[in-house]
Amino acid sequence: MGKTKKDRISQRKETTLNKLKGLGQTIIDDVHEKKIPSLKIPSRGTSNLVYDKDKRYYVLGDRYGKRSLGNVKQIRKIGQMMYVSNFCKNLVQIEKTATLREMYYVSEGWGMSFANQQESNVLAEDLEVTISSSREDLGLMPEEDGASVYGNIILKEGDVEINGLRSGKSGYTISPTIDEVEFIDCDVKRVIAVETMGMFHRMVQEKAHDKFDTIIVGLKGQPARATRRFLKRVNQELKLPVYICNDGDPWGFHIAMVIISGSAKLAHVNHDLATPDAKFLGVTATDIVKYDLPTDNLKEIDVLRLKELLKDPRYKDKIWQLEIKKMLKIGKKAEQQAFSKYGLEYVVDTYFPEKLDAIEN
Amino acid sequence: MGKTKKDRISQRKETTLNKLKGLGQTIIDDVHEKKIPSLKIPSRGTSNLVYDKDKRYYVLGDRYGKRSLGNVKQIRKIGQMMYVSNFCKNLVQIEKTATLREMYYVSEGWGMSFANQQESNVLAEDLEVTISSSREDLGLMPEEDGASVYGNIILKEGDVEINGLRSGKSGYTISPTIDEVEFIDCDVKRVIAVETMGMFHRMVQEKAHDKFDTIIVGLKGQPARATRRFLKRVNQELKLPVYICNDGDPWGFHIAMVIISGSAKLAHVNHDLATPDAKFLGVTATDIVKYDLPTDNLKEIDVLRLKELLKDPRYKDKIWQLEIKKMLKIGKKAEQQAFSKYGLEYVVDTYFPEKLDAIEN
Repeated sequence: MGKTKKDRISQRKETTLNKLKGLGQTIIDDVHEKKIPSLKIPSRGTSNLVYDKDKRYYVLGDRYGKRSLGNVKQIRKIGQMMYVSNFCKNLVQIEKTATLREMYYVSEGWGMSFANQQESNVLAEDLEVTISSSREDLGLMPEEDGASVYGNIILKEGDVEINGLRSGKSGYTISPTIDEVEFIDCDVKRVIAVETMGMFHRMVQEKAHDKFDTIIVGLKGQPARATRRFLKRVNQELKLPVYICNDGDPWGFHIAMVIISGSAKLAHVNHDLATPDAKFLGVTATDIVKYDLPTDNLKEIDVLRLKELLKDPRYKDKIWQLEIKKMLKIGKKAEQQAFSKYGLEYVVDTYFPEKLDAIEN
Repeated sequence: MGKTKKDRISQRKETTLNKLKGLGQTIIDDVHEKKIPSLKIPSRGTSNLVYDKDKRYYVLGDRYGKRSLGNVKQIRKIGQMMYVSNFCKNLVQIEKTATLREMYYVSEGWGMSFANQQESNVLAEDLEVTISSSREDLGLMPEEDGASVYGNIILKEGDVEINGLRSGKSGYTISPTIDEVEFIDCDVKRVIAVETMGMFHRMVQEKAHDKFDTIIVGLKGQPARATRRFLKRVNQELKLPVYICNDGDPWGFHIAMVIISGSAKLAHVNHDLATPDAKFLGVTATDIVKYDLPTDNLKEIDVLRLKELLKDPRYKDKIWQLEIKKMLKIGKKAEQQAFSKYGLEYVVDTYFPEKLDAIEN
């Protein structure tokens, strides 16, 4: 399936190492040339966030800040960045990872430690954006688990082959180091991601993987970065359509939208995370009416959030505008599990086939 | 390994079905005998919670409430319990499960629906306690995932064999239906459970499973019921010592204590969930001083909680009393990841060997 794992992983690793070495070299060169060493750090402020209509996700604009050893306030920050870069270089070389929390504690030994973890987290982001590598490439891992995956896919982590149909009822858990995972074989037509593990287990029990020839992904709410990377990779590398099936409320909409168009906060890594061709297949205001679903009234905070989404460039499509306005009009929201009103099997036997048919034909 | 899976599972299933049928029969018998049908429901109020010193966990006392069809306020509740019982009987027979949320929505079709999910959750607990079966035996599943398991253990779910060393870096995820899982083979000396997935991944990377001949369990904070059941089963069925390695703060202590001695809220199922022989191997106040760990000051809420724990019968042991008082005295707490101060490997290379040696020898 395309490039072999060794190629791809060793290439990512080499690229990252070269970028880290290059960063240090900039400082050394400045010293040799008797210039005051400085670094250019792309700005992550809201004024530098640009929604790229062609790419269909947020990217960073071209504004940047400069940190100079000539500015006494910035000396410490540059020193910290050198330490963090060196720490990451070591991680990549020995093929280990650390959590941001671990790095924060490790920094206690640097004599240039951080006031709190927030400060070291921000510095890790500074480094990501400065050398344009993702945190994961730098060996810095999130704490949280990735999504659960069930279905006819075979993956390889190191020398371990994993069969998505034979990992237990809760499926394969996406590794934080998902870029090191190789897709060995996959014989399905699509990927359906659902918001809750309740719905994931329903799909597995009703054999949705067979019925819809699909991989089932249990997002566990707002998906981890590794999950978003996994969805992008199956979409790009395996050419599979990805459907996001969430609750019918502004939070469900936005969980899907972050998978599709990336988040503003992570504009510098959206090229690795966003899956612009993924489609929302969750509960809409139209579904709420059509299927006469049990609902809850929209709360004030739901209404505010829906109004925000209306103005968000990621929701500019006509269908989103219609559905959001319709939800505001009916004043109701509904969860995906609400289809159980018609029996546990209904969501797989009736609802999903109708939705898939509408979107694919 | 002891009873075969078929024996054990079909026995649990039959027992549950008989209890559910028995419950309905009580009502029918009353009608035939021209008595006003009523049910006895053990009380779950705090005044009926008893800490059993021999069993070393909370159990329910012998107080109960009576619900009678002769009381107009109780008719609806009895009707709902019959519907829920019937729903569960069906689940057990067709070998499916449902979430509490799904049951709530299904109840919309009963003509005897609940005001909100809180009400249907409580009724499910009423049923658990009335027939003394766990929710899982009734087919009612929690939403949340179980813990992650890594190490030399082979399990069987249905006809799928799962190798805890070959399920990927994030390990095998404990299924909500853990009682249907069979232990096929397990060649280790102990089980070490850690609070965070950050520590889980550290242990896996440093090959703690080899070094300590252990299964590694990533609890993900407060463990799910399925995780507690898994730990009890490996302790009882595989005769493995279980160590709980959490952060050094009142919340870390109590996560361990709920695994060891059960929770008060679930007194009616603690016999299935509590592992009284499990041992706390996490960060203590003594460790904080001995290893000169990076700390945070205790917050007011930490101090309050520690003082509560001092009075809790589950913490009556001398060592707990000493450690809690010591923590109050030094006024500091520390996370397990704080050992990274001495390098990423330190926790596995130095700290755990010293702790294991102290507790086992």
